[in-house]
Amino acid sequence: MKPKHVGITAPLGFQAAGIHCGIKKPGLLDLALCLSDVSGPIAGVFTKNRVVAAPVLLDRRHLRSRRGRAIIVNSGNANACTGAQGLVAAKAMATAVAQQLSIPVHQVFVGSTGVIGRVLPIDRIIAAVPTLIARLSIPGGDQAAHAILTTDLRPKTVVRQARIGGRTVTIGGMAKGSGMIHPNMATMLAYLTTDAAIVPAALQHALRATVDQSFNCITVDGDTSTNDTVLCLANGLAKNRPIQQGTRSYRDFERLLTEAAQELALMICRDGEGVTKVVTILVQGAATTAAAKRVADTIATSNLVKTALFGEDANWGRIMAAVGRSGVAIDPNKVTVRFDDIIMVRRGIGTGLEAEQQIAQIFKQKEFRIIIQLGQGHAHAHRWTTDLSYDYVRINASYRS
Amino acid sequence: MKPKHVGITAPLGFQAAGIHCGIKKPGLLDLALCLSDVSGPIAGVFTKNRVVAAPVLLDRRHLRSRRGRAIIVNSGNANACTGAQGLVAAKAMATAVAQQLSIPVHQVFVGSTGVIGRVLPIDRIIAAVPTLIARLSIPGGDQAAHAILTTDLRPKTVVRQARIGGRTVTIGGMAKGSGMIHPNMATMLAYLTTDAAIVPAALQHALRATVDQSFNCITVDGDTSTNDTVLCLANGLAKNRPIQQGTRSYRDFERLLTEAAQELALMICRDGEGVTKVVTILVQGAATTAAAKRVADTIATSNLVKTALFGEDANWGRIMAAVGRSGVAIDPNKVTVRFDDIIMVRRGIGTGLEAEQQIAQIFKQKEFRIIIQLGQGHAHAHRWTTDLSYDYVRINASYRS
Repeated sequence: MKPKHVGITAPLGFQAAGIHCGIKKPGLLDLALCLSDVSGPIAGVFTKNRVVAAPVLLDRRHLRSRRGRAIIVNSGNANACTGAQGLVAAKAMATAVAQQLSIPVHQVFVGSTGVIGRVLPIDRIIAAVPTLIARLSIPGGDQAAHAILTTDLRPKTVVRQARIGGRTVTIGGMAKGSGMIHPNMATMLAYLTTDAAIVPAALQHALRATVDQSFNCITVDGDTSTNDTVLCLANGLAKNRPIQQGTRSYRDFERLLTEAAQELALMICRDGEGVTKVVTILVQGAATTAAAKRVADTIATSNLVKTALFGEDANWGRIMAAVGRSGVAIDPNKVTVRFDDIIMVRRGIGTGLEAEQQIAQIFKQKEFRIIIQLGQGHAHAHRWTTDLSYDYVRINASYRS
Repeated sequence: MKPKHVGITAPLGFQAAGIHCGIKKPGLLDLALCLSDVSGPIAGVFTKNRVVAAPVLLDRRHLRSRRGRAIIVNSGNANACTGAQGLVAAKAMATAVAQQLSIPVHQVFVGSTGVIGRVLPIDRIIAAVPTLIARLSIPGGDQAAHAILTTDLRPKTVVRQARIGGRTVTIGGMAKGSGMIHPNMATMLAYLTTDAAIVPAALQHALRATVDQSFNCITVDGDTSTNDTVLCLANGLAKNRPIQQGTRSYRDFERLLTEAAQELALMICRDGEGVTKVVTILVQGAATTAAAKRVADTIATSNLVKTALFGEDANWGRIMAAVGRSGVAIDPNKVTVRFDDIIMVRRGIGTGLEAEQQIAQIFKQKEFRIIIQLGQGHAHAHRWTTDLSYDYVRINASYRS
């Protein structure tokens, strides 16, 4: 099954728009709106950062009613570290949309991404809302996907369809984020839409499980920006029987949502600032899942590993050093390290120059896998990481200029 | 008081040498020896990495007798992840020195730094030991300081003198390390020598306290390489009354040792791979010292902070984001951030464009301070961090070629 459109307007009953309102330089899209024809359950997962941007504070509040209909997002300004004034501005964004569409304000969700600590030019945003609403359309999903970007090179959209409960259910999505890749983050925003009918608790449960297997695999637990937000809005227009937890329909829906989110997460990796490689770190044989994640995170965030990936230098010693300093009580004598199918370390010892020459070829690939077997148990975890390149430095050294 | 020499041969009764033995390319010094005229107490602090190089395993064993006389160090090969063969090689290095000098083998300590996982060319090292010994001299401290380097741009040596217990006591030192700076590490080695007379337990106590206030301020706790080693050898030739813990002499000695180690640590920062700036991160008003360290570490290791330093982009929002994601339960509304004397954030909110223009000037300095007041208690911690530059990527992307 192939839907006509890719992105947040792919499911039934969604329209979107993206325009320039004057936050970014002229010509650059900086304001997006997504609207469902009808209101429906909405789920959210937000940053764990203690410094929380105003739009996240507002969304958490609006999420209490678990019902949404519209999402407005600006880029170019994070509306973070802006105090009470920032919260007033976030509310004003939601109110402007709610009033003009005659919908309850708590059904409008707000996102912001860009520079921290600058006052949001709220007047320009409010003045642009009528135009934004006038431009709403199904193809407008493309402009919306552009309007939420900051340093991203490409817009990121996804669509997935499946038969669930005898009806065709569609999930669409868009995301922004490229600086956020290990080991640090700029803001990641992801908005998922679906025409599935699903009860609110099941939607929230599915979204949380999905994020853990997708966006959390490209970011360290808790290592999030002031603005990170993932929302999923379900309008029920597919007219399937409402999905309840513990059913086959639920499992099908969660799988579909995870597939969509993983595709967006990998797009974020591939579009990472200055990224030339995307490498899967797979830790197996750990005593606990937490231990597996910790080892995977340590490797995936190591600047020495990431620069070696960029330089295509098969410096596997840096992998071993990262495994050793992860804080997990590993036994080096039990550790095996493979690069795709080549065993480079067996029981903690390098397997020799021939293997090194073989992995040197693997390091030239754009994507490959590093598999670390700890030999201590059966838990596992994966992470996607990227290289650290000149362009990463260039982009981040002059982000605001 | 100014001693004639700077470095490990500055105290009475120490000689050293540095030669080329054939691990590195011809012409590059790669083997160092330091010898005291008499044996004396020795203290050591080693890597917390679970993957431990052979020389560290050997040194820990030799340290049990708490007495040392010689230290032999090679560069160009870390002798890590080399298994039983690696331990045999480390022992052979110590044995060759011990036999030719007719001293007990457990009084010889070994260090290695360089590529992980390659077999150490032990035959070349053993063949070079007679030449190494023949070259021992007081000015030879300079060659020794060169011979332990890897990607370092400059040798790092230090000397400190003070009257302790009525006698002039001298502390000398040398170090290598530049990749090791936050947030990752290549090996850091530091060797301190002194003619102080001091009891072994007091020396070990002083060295541990010193490392916590110096080398641990440029590296994350536990975030160490497979080979990191700090040794301090005291031969007693200053003929002061042996220093005991809890005395004024002890406090004077610890202060002197800390000064020497801090100077070496700052040299490592300034010589960091591709470093153009050294910035002091000072966290104050924390509830506990552990919390202060954790916040300081999170800022000091943030690639987004480090690239902003390189770009001289006064992006203070990245500091706030790092404070928020440190895992410490900070209250953003209590946080104040200063850059040298300019308050940029008060109670979690940016103080405006004028302050931003002033800190933009501070970002152009080669060294400055970022002071974060958490407003939760009285504990504090400092870290020295550096910027992340194109050269960092260049050097680390092609370390082995």
